[in-house]
Amino acid sequence: MSKPAFLRRRLVPSLRHPARVVVLAFAVATLIGTALLMLPMATESGAGTDPIAALFTVVSAICVTGLVVVDTPTHWSIFGEVVVLALIQVGGFGIMTLASLLTLLVSRRLGLRMQLTAQAETKTLGLGDVRTVVGGVIVVSLVVEAVTAVFLGLRFLIGYGESPARAAYLGIFHAVSAFNNAGFALYTDSMVGFAADPWICLPILFAVIVGGLGFPVIFELVRRRNRKRWSLHTRITVPVYFGLLALGTLAVLVLEWGNTLGKLDVHHKLLAGVFHGVMPRTAGFNSLDVGAMHSSTLLINDVLMFIGGGSAGTAGGIKVTTFALLGFVILAEIRGEPTVHVMNRRLTDQVQRQALTVALLGVGAVMAGTITLLSISPFPLDDVLFETTSAFGTVGMSTGITAQLPAAGQLVLIALMFIGRLGPITLASALALRDRARRYELPEERPVVG
Amino acid sequence: MSKPAFLRRRLVPSLRHPARVVVLAFAVATLIGTALLMLPMATESGAGTDPIAALFTVVSAICVTGLVVVDTPTHWSIFGEVVVLALIQVGGFGIMTLASLLTLLVSRRLGLRMQLTAQAETKTLGLGDVRTVVGGVIVVSLVVEAVTAVFLGLRFLIGYGESPARAAYLGIFHAVSAFNNAGFALYTDSMVGFAADPWICLPILFAVIVGGLGFPVIFELVRRRNRKRWSLHTRITVPVYFGLLALGTLAVLVLEWGNTLGKLDVHHKLLAGVFHGVMPRTAGFNSLDVGAMHSSTLLINDVLMFIGGGSAGTAGGIKVTTFALLGFVILAEIRGEPTVHVMNRRLTDQVQRQALTVALLGVGAVMAGTITLLSISPFPLDDVLFETTSAFGTVGMSTGITAQLPAAGQLVLIALMFIGRLGPITLASALALRDRARRYELPEERPVVG
Ligand SMILES: [K+]
Ligand SMILES: [K+]
Repeated sequence: MSKPAFLRRRLVPSLRHPARVVVLAFAVATLIGTALLMLPMATESGAGTDPIAALFTVVSAICVTGLVVVDTPTHWSIFGEVVVLALIQVGGFGIMTLASLLTLLVSRRLGLRMQLTAQAETKTLGLGDVRTVVGGVIVVSLVVEAVTAVFLGLRFLIGYGESPARAAYLGIFHAVSAFNNAGFALYTDSMVGFAADPWICLPILFAVIVGGLGFPVIFELVRRRNRKRWSLHTRITVPVYFGLLALGTLAVLVLEWGNTLGKLDVHHKLLAGVFHGVMPRTAGFNSLDVGAMHSSTLLINDVLMFIGGGSAGTAGGIKVTTFALLGFVILAEIRGEPTVHVMNRRLTDQVQRQALTVALLGVGAVMAGTITLLSISPFPLDDVLFETTSAFGTVGMSTGITAQLPAAGQLVLIALMFIGRLGPITLASALALRDRARRYELPEERPVVG
Repeated sequence: MSKPAFLRRRLVPSLRHPARVVVLAFAVATLIGTALLMLPMATESGAGTDPIAALFTVVSAICVTGLVVVDTPTHWSIFGEVVVLALIQVGGFGIMTLASLLTLLVSRRLGLRMQLTAQAETKTLGLGDVRTVVGGVIVVSLVVEAVTAVFLGLRFLIGYGESPARAAYLGIFHAVSAFNNAGFALYTDSMVGFAADPWICLPILFAVIVGGLGFPVIFELVRRRNRKRWSLHTRITVPVYFGLLALGTLAVLVLEWGNTLGKLDVHHKLLAGVFHGVMPRTAGFNSLDVGAMHSSTLLINDVLMFIGGGSAGTAGGIKVTTFALLGFVILAEIRGEPTVHVMNRRLTDQVQRQALTVALLGVGAVMAGTITLLSISPFPLDDVLFETTSAFGTVGMSTGITAQLPAAGQLVLIALMFIGRLGPITLASALALRDRARRYELPEERPVVG
């Protein structure tokens, strides 16, 4: 299929510089959102919102994080809440679409590509690709959000005696928030009130897990039932994603059994354990009191939140593939193998370096943010590291210190949310799209390692 | 120079499996040391020491760490202290020698090699190499320790009115402890009593810095005045080592100016600042109350302690070259360069993977230890992370929780000290000595990163 030249010209240049496009789009949306949320009508009281709180809320929504400095249900009016919801949807849709398109540009065979007309290695996208991705993301988003909203809405209607309109609103809000891994809730204590209600928790878990897997994986799972035809990306993402989920669940159950899980029945303990096993990947609702959790639970969550979910989805973090690739590199090194092999495929040195760069820059960002917050706030490392990892991983869980941080601290979190949401994607894609060759080679020399 | 076959045969097999030799030697020394320290005569009171406390002290000494569960001056008799000192000397000498020899085996041109007869790429060591290294380490150790001991001894004699014998003992003990970056002190509060005394602090700093640079660097600095003839290893180590030292000093001065530095004059503040800027690389004395330091200071120290000092020296951590190499890899990635170049030399993919492996396994070890300690002790993350990093980096500074940890926690620290001291060296060398080739190559495929 040949495309008209004007279409190709319009699409290609912008996607040639994905970092700029993405950052610019997010900046514009942030400005509009902040202006809207600063309107008096956006607040319940009509008193308006100060710029930093409005900016924080907008960045948190558009980066689908869920950290808040004002209480969502009591501070914002319905208008304010709808603005937040729109920002979540725009942010989630934007990232899924752009990241999926960039993935297509970068990847030689990520499944999707094979569905389409072969386009060789030219690193341009045809209109067909864009249409498939945009259409696919819209369909998946709407279907999952609709199904989740129906279940939640019915439960709010029947189980909690809400009016039909209110139940529909609550259902839609939490469904959109869940699918986009945004973690905003219309309850001051998030999902703590529903910790023992599977009719609320399970639909949310469903939406969170599907959104967090990432569009390329969802696309392959839907289109290709035969596991042997899955791309390497999907074959890595699926087991690691669910492995981390199991690990998180186990950690919460073991470490919190007599603590935050203490008051619940055994089967509600299990429900809340699974709920909090899923949330670090990186949805951010909570059905237990995070601030009362044990230090060890918090640190395990820090690790899980940093790793995050699947690429090109609504989850944050450095992504499960990045984490897994580093694991494969280490394994190959320990075995003394000269090349890194994963499931009968060879990993290029380039991909290994990218994974290293994404992970270590992430560590650097979290460390810099943590040291800054520690030095300007009275909170201990447990709380501060949890807060910065939550912001970087766009998770949104908090031990409760967000609103008490000084303005400078909230700006640090805003920066971390932006870096966490846009950094790895724009960085990885910008890196992968560039292939500058050196004109000459220098002699090798090996410094001592370790 | 050709060597007799029987010499070559004896040296080569053991150095072919350096990991086993090193681990075995440390295990034997640990057993002997523990038996000696459990003798009643090793204690001041004559009451003997329980096995875990004795084992902990021995591992801490032989791994030149300096963490203690019993107070060195009041618990141990002179005999006990001399055993500790001997273990420090054996541990420091053993690691410096073995790591230097392994470095020679691994490295194609690390300066030393060029001084000797050319030995091609055969990965065997001649007797000449071994003699040069062992002799060099002994000379450097004795000279630096002697100079330091003289200065310290004179100060203890003149400034503090100690008897000549006692002053000599104090001088030798702290000189050996300082050069080997061991951090054991004969004062309950380490060097806090001497925070304002440059005649004590400066000789200790001198010994610590020289020991921590690592033997290959010291050797080159002494032998080759012309900086242009330095090996890449030295050219990386020197600026990064002193850069981290400056960074640590600055951090302590800025963050502790009104806190633990509060009571000191300005020029004593500077002295203590430099002292605590040097200690994370990884000597472990303290002239300020570490337990009273700000959370942000502790976290910066965690990072610095994890990085540690120079390779094949008495310092611990993942080593400054490992840290710097990862930085160069990231820089190359961000610039989009297909190969990683450092100071006109190319880094092989193999070296990059080794650095990655050493660093990430280190992170893994510290994280696992931290999560375990958090779950079995009541201490917050600030203290626990500082403790585990201090153990892994064989630093020996503590916020004061070591002795209060349950036995299982102390065993975790023992494991971390062993892993931190032996892990990176044996791992890196074992990796570098192995070059297994694959018989076939698999097709490439690139998963999505970030
Ligand atoms: K989130
Ligand atoms: K030490």
